[in-house]
Amino acid sequence: MRTQVAIVGAGPAGLFLGHLLRQAGVDVVILERKDRAYVEGRVRAGVLERITVELMERLGVDERMRREGLVHAGANLASDGEMFRIDMAELTGGSTVMVYGQQEVMKDLFDAAEQRDLRIVFDADAVRLHDVEGERPHITWRKDGAEHRLDCDFIAGCDGYHGVSRATIPDKVLKTFERVYPFGWLGILAEAPPCDHELIYSNHDRGFALASMRSPTRSRYYVQCSLDDRLEDWSDERFWDEVSVRLGPEAAARIVRAPSFEKSIAPLRSFVSEPMRYGRLFLAGDAAHIVPPTGAKGMNLAVSDVIMLSEALVEHYHERSSAGIDGYSARALARVWKAERFSWWFTSLTHRFPDQDGFDRKMQVAELAYIKGSRAAQVTLAENYVGLPLV
Amino acid sequence: MRTQVAIVGAGPAGLFLGHLLRQAGVDVVILERKDRAYVEGRVRAGVLERITVELMERLGVDERMRREGLVHAGANLASDGEMFRIDMAELTGGSTVMVYGQQEVMKDLFDAAEQRDLRIVFDADAVRLHDVEGERPHITWRKDGAEHRLDCDFIAGCDGYHGVSRATIPDKVLKTFERVYPFGWLGILAEAPPCDHELIYSNHDRGFALASMRSPTRSRYYVQCSLDDRLEDWSDERFWDEVSVRLGPEAAARIVRAPSFEKSIAPLRSFVSEPMRYGRLFLAGDAAHIVPPTGAKGMNLAVSDVIMLSEALVEHYHERSSAGIDGYSARALARVWKAERFSWWFTSLTHRFPDQDGFDRKMQVAELAYIKGSRAAQVTLAENYVGLPLV
Repeated sequence: MRTQVAIVGAGPAGLFLGHLLRQAGVDVVILERKDRAYVEGRVRAGVLERITVELMERLGVDERMRREGLVHAGANLASDGEMFRIDMAELTGGSTVMVYGQQEVMKDLFDAAEQRDLRIVFDADAVRLHDVEGERPHITWRKDGAEHRLDCDFIAGCDGYHGVSRATIPDKVLKTFERVYPFGWLGILAEAPPCDHELIYSNHDRGFALASMRSPTRSRYYVQCSLDDRLEDWSDERFWDEVSVRLGPEAAARIVRAPSFEKSIAPLRSFVSEPMRYGRLFLAGDAAHIVPPTGAKGMNLAVSDVIMLSEALVEHYHERSSAGIDGYSARALARVWKAERFSWWFTSLTHRFPDQDGFDRKMQVAELAYIKGSRAAQVTLAENYVGLPLV
Repeated sequence: MRTQVAIVGAGPAGLFLGHLLRQAGVDVVILERKDRAYVEGRVRAGVLERITVELMERLGVDERMRREGLVHAGANLASDGEMFRIDMAELTGGSTVMVYGQQEVMKDLFDAAEQRDLRIVFDADAVRLHDVEGERPHITWRKDGAEHRLDCDFIAGCDGYHGVSRATIPDKVLKTFERVYPFGWLGILAEAPPCDHELIYSNHDRGFALASMRSPTRSRYYVQCSLDDRLEDWSDERFWDEVSVRLGPEAAARIVRAPSFEKSIAPLRSFVSEPMRYGRLFLAGDAAHIVPPTGAKGMNLAVSDVIMLSEALVEHYHERSSAGIDGYSARALARVWKAERFSWWFTSLTHRFPDQDGFDRKMQVAELAYIKGSRAAQVTLAENYVGLPLV
């Protein structure tokens, strides 16, 4: 089998890239280790930046999102139970975000892939990348007991943090940067109307909490927890009690308690590997970088990567210029680092750290008070939250 | 001896407060442990916020400052040798700062004190505060071999970090917050024109550097150094070489080397004690809080404290209302914490920390890149730099 661009991984990065390249007339094949149901079922982020909303539109996969997604023009910050609103739209000259679960995005992208004959090979096991330093890379994998091979011009590594793509790049080439946070997020999904029509990010003495939603009838709540906590420790009742205290009385009064139908603990990590290109292999999304979930940048960063990567590859095929592919890594990383900074800052501002002393805590409280009182500080939060421009 | 308000300490806080109260017809006596030459000779900060400039004006002690001070409408940030300018005036709707050494401010305040018969007792040794919890506090001290006593309505503790005023407040009443930074500032003064007409704050791989000045012919430079460094380790030549590397080629090309006539190493500390009132004792300035010098908030914070304290005391004497003095601590601390946050943030952004890993360093670089590209981020820096409003 042969294609122009082989894409490893059918998560958001791989699927968006596949659609983008196909729309531009570039031939692609996507290899995915799991099946569609598995990929689509993963519960992930749910806040889309403007660039992601616009990409859905551009790819013509926005119909259901326009109908079911929730446009958010603001978000709330709470500090020890006292809440104030950041008017994102007013502060950014009209930018908003869209609440629409990653699972829904995946469903729309998979549906469109079927309609458009975007080639996706599911259950591709033991994927290996070969000759990525040379002119003629190829990929091998095992499926249904047989070995398969795909020859290509380029490989896009969209296979996430644990994927084979980054692992293919020699250690001596990669510089990695990492921060592991000393806490996790315990999240639940419940069939209950959210306590607020917008998100509430709360810094409480007992730890961070987040009130979010998937729809007007489905709530998503998180509390910062210890990495030693087990799900069994957290009955629904304990969760509701805790999140109510941390979000503060105003929000707590409006919380509708319902049985959780999903409950999980996720660690928080910042991670970047540089460069994002090695020979004919390009990394995009979680394969190259991870952000903590605070501020919901993960999928949106994958989107900015693949927009830039598709532009670079299309330039190569249409204009026979290598400027785009040569510049991809530096261009993508410039935006990645700013989003990493925002996610790290927003996490640092809102969470309790085990080694935090009284001065650290006062710095958080003072910064929240400063944000509350300064329009400029609110603009910095808002412009990062809705997403910095693609440059 | 009897007065209405006894002020302990004739540094900027004490002298400004003395002038303010005297101007409002409140009777004051200032007690100072050292003599005028000593207090005036201490080399300190040199950047005055708008509120400090306006206070000099209001007290009629601004004549020499208007003539000799340098109005700065901007400042420069450098990141690994690449420089960009923050246009403070444009970003804040016209606010500027004034470069005018604390030594000059002190001289003007002392001169005016003599002309206006502001009572200052120098060489007051072994100062002790008594009965500050009661209705009739008094102060004792030793001078010229004799014991002295001053009865008063209120005591203003303006005697700095090591002074007796804060030490008089029982430990169980005070909450203190502190951060000691793992480095110092090595500073020099030299009779040479500055390398730039504005300040340059530089974050370099080898550590922080600052190019500042006292006048068009007198330069002030700093480099971050180890707390273990001794002055003997730093010849002028080594200093000039190091500051040139850290400020970057653009600035280095304009550095005029001259023999230093002052050279010293200062530690960096953040410190706040709460509350700022205990009975009839009020703390102001360094007695209650210390900031690291990055951003030059120290003396300006003392000024905002004493403006608020003078308003509170004048309200007490003129309107027989205790609302001002009851609210002083909370009002002053709200602004103190914001300035503490800014000074901590600006220090964290620009210095190398011994335990800093690659990720931390990338966060600094990303934040500097973000500031360079975001008007809103520049406004937050500028509005803090010129000084947040008094509220």
